[in-house]
Amino acid sequence: MAAERMVVIGGDATGMSAASQARRLKGPEELEIIVFERGRFTSFSACGIPYWVGGSVAERDDLVARTPDEHRARAIDLRMRTEVTEIDVAGQRVRSHDLESGARTWTSYDELVLATGARPVRPALPGIDAAGVHGVQTLGDGESLIDSLESARGNRAVVVGAGYIGVEMAEALLRRGYRVTVLTRGSQPMATLDPDMGRLVHEAMDGMGITTVTGAEVTGILTDDAGRVRAVSADGTEYPADIAVLGMGVAPQTAVARAAGLPLGEHGGLLTDLSMRVQGHENIWAGGDCVEVLDLVSGRMRHIPLGTHANKHGQIIGANIGGGYATFPGVVGTAVSKVCDVEIARTGLREKDARAAGLQFVTATIEATNSAGYYPEAAAMTVKMLAERRTGKLLGVQIVGREGSAKRVDIAAVALTAGMTVEQMVTLDLGYAPPFSPVWDPVLVAARKAVGAVRRAGA
Amino acid sequence: MAAERMVVIGGDATGMSAASQARRLKGPEELEIIVFERGRFTSFSACGIPYWVGGSVAERDDLVARTPDEHRARAIDLRMRTEVTEIDVAGQRVRSHDLESGARTWTSYDELVLATGARPVRPALPGIDAAGVHGVQTLGDGESLIDSLESARGNRAVVVGAGYIGVEMAEALLRRGYRVTVLTRGSQPMATLDPDMGRLVHEAMDGMGITTVTGAEVTGILTDDAGRVRAVSADGTEYPADIAVLGMGVAPQTAVARAAGLPLGEHGGLLTDLSMRVQGHENIWAGGDCVEVLDLVSGRMRHIPLGTHANKHGQIIGANIGGGYATFPGVVGTAVSKVCDVEIARTGLREKDARAAGLQFVTATIEATNSAGYYPEAAAMTVKMLAERRTGKLLGVQIVGREGSAKRVDIAAVALTAGMTVEQMVTLDLGYAPPFSPVWDPVLVAARKAVGAVRRAGA
Repeated sequence: MAAERMVVIGGDATGMSAASQARRLKGPEELEIIVFERGRFTSFSACGIPYWVGGSVAERDDLVARTPDEHRARAIDLRMRTEVTEIDVAGQRVRSHDLESGARTWTSYDELVLATGARPVRPALPGIDAAGVHGVQTLGDGESLIDSLESARGNRAVVVGAGYIGVEMAEALLRRGYRVTVLTRGSQPMATLDPDMGRLVHEAMDGMGITTVTGAEVTGILTDDAGRVRAVSADGTEYPADIAVLGMGVAPQTAVARAAGLPLGEHGGLLTDLSMRVQGHENIWAGGDCVEVLDLVSGRMRHIPLGTHANKHGQIIGANIGGGYATFPGVVGTAVSKVCDVEIARTGLREKDARAAGLQFVTATIEATNSAGYYPEAAAMTVKMLAERRTGKLLGVQIVGREGSAKRVDIAAVALTAGMTVEQMVTLDLGYAPPFSPVWDPVLVAARKAVGAVRRAGA
Repeated sequence: MAAERMVVIGGDATGMSAASQARRLKGPEELEIIVFERGRFTSFSACGIPYWVGGSVAERDDLVARTPDEHRARAIDLRMRTEVTEIDVAGQRVRSHDLESGARTWTSYDELVLATGARPVRPALPGIDAAGVHGVQTLGDGESLIDSLESARGNRAVVVGAGYIGVEMAEALLRRGYRVTVLTRGSQPMATLDPDMGRLVHEAMDGMGITTVTGAEVTGILTDDAGRVRAVSADGTEYPADIAVLGMGVAPQTAVARAAGLPLGEHGGLLTDLSMRVQGHENIWAGGDCVEVLDLVSGRMRHIPLGTHANKHGQIIGANIGGGYATFPGVVGTAVSKVCDVEIARTGLREKDARAAGLQFVTATIEATNSAGYYPEAAAMTVKMLAERRTGKLLGVQIVGREGSAKRVDIAAVALTAGMTVEQMVTLDLGYAPPFSPVWDPVLVAARKAVGAVRRAGA
């Protein structure tokens, strides 16, 4: 019996996890594995780029979990710099384009994995392609940004966007000695938080010397005679820039999938079943930044590009193709980040998400410390909790604070997954010792206040 | 209508939380509140004593959350230095002994709260009461230890016991410049962990210059001519000591309750219902270190003296006496601690607990890092997970590692409370960003390995 052939489009987190997991379960005599990767790297941590740019990660290759040759050594036929341009679903084959030689080839598959990731949002603004304007999506982007920082004539940086990438890049540029201005369309940085919590991030960034301009609609990039960025223009104001970094979010990279007639959701991501199989297609799988995932709290589909989901999807797909069985039930929307020493976390629904889902809710916000109040390094933390009216079901948690704040959101992430009420959370048996927590953990203090809010809201 | 009277025995975490919460719900015209406290302090953090002794907490009073006068200002009739010596259940009254004046008085109650705490285990060894031998249960103990450290003639300290108090005191004494030897009967320090995980703590303590002697049965304290400790004797070996600290655990302080015929469990703690009412007694409540609590994982009663439970119990009792309604469902056995920069955490069952509960199980132990492997401060962490055979239900987690290790146990504590399987845990949506976690959180890596172990163990 001839080996089956698994073809993977995209050699990053999802694609290589799927290939590796399938290979663990089936040897080359049973399963041939071909991976097409458009770029020059495999299995790299895009999330690590801000820390490389900021200098806390020394080398580009530190961000590469596994090189092409390491994958090849495990009997994975990896074709680098090769882009898949077409999927022939009926014919079970993909057309690829070798970006070096220019050759175009059809390759047939028994099982196909779409792991095409996301592309950065890059609006068609005047000057957007000027020298000194950088995205931070790929290792190549990181390299050219670092080169550009070294050749920049001044130390003024403008970051467009104040989401995770934006604030992490603000920190990185600050560490590189830049004076940083962050422009955001939103009313506060970190639109993944409610504005009242985003305001805390804003204030903290002020304290770090980062200028944040809210409600700023970027209209263009202004260049000097040499064609290099000299300012970013927003609402008629020019923000001088020796370097500009774009952190305006990403969108699923699904043009080829769309052309092949594969099902996409309202955010442009592929739609899969629980086993990560593309809906309506027995032998096509998809995961990572190119798919939409079920939000278990709101019941709606979301696009959440995040390495941790991408790795899980890959492993699940690889297990299923390899003859095992695994599923991905969905997400609760957990995300953590930091700007310098301020940690930022969220899980579940923001107020506007809850409203959009048709939920009535109460909120409770508390201030506490990360360790016992008398402990020397005790530092402030603000926790906001949303609970459903009447049922008291936990809907979401947001945290902004110093060290020890961000990962506390995991408590709420597990509670959300388990469908706990805030009343049930009050008696959770969480770790207590003075260096680690006040006697009532901040998450429990928030839950206690939320219980009161639920009661007062009545039936 | 005359006010009802609530009498509380013990003015620490449980007693004062109960009094305060009841007072919040009912004014003095409705509810009179009398609290008897044998000592000189109220509402202090016993857990903070090691950090005070070690010098990271500056002042004794930093450990006092609320003074007697602050409580009195909220219409709580607090009688300090007054010990309750007898409970007359049929007559609904308690007899108290004013330790200053010597007066003995009967006080009637409508509702009685037992918050008598725990007493340190102090075996009747020769020399145990010598100068320079110290417990660390009360603020008075802490004061006399600090005085004793200042007058000690040398810098050799022996700590008897290697549980939480023992290892925290080892750190404190190290910080004070002492050469520290820890003696434990166990095969490893931290008997609250399985021995394989305790061994990691042992190795870490070795690295800090703390000498740990295992399997050491202390037989006596040797004194000098002045009657001060000069050595601790164990199994025929003398361990020179300028100071000795006892951290041999605590037992419920329930002699008065026992004499009154109140129900005690196999660990000597009071037995209550879910509302923290003493079993069989309509108007007697108990909580904190003097009660036994239900272990939700094993279904057995345990004695777990811990400030976080004591505070919750107090608040629940106060709510119920105040006309509200609250219950304490039980614990999962979470505990965190540290020795210098090594963090120690556990929740749920150890191997021997699981066996004692009649459970069959598999274990999985993994090594990981607290942040992305390439992140500069990435530091090692070992996670051990127990899962039930066949069902895959999570039974327990133990963690030993550097910064960021201990509070990760909360993920497992919530999962245990929710009755999750290790398979369900693998897809938990935990916070991920390079400074906070590898792309697979260490707890998820352990869960993945445990899933494999459950499968291999079969039906």
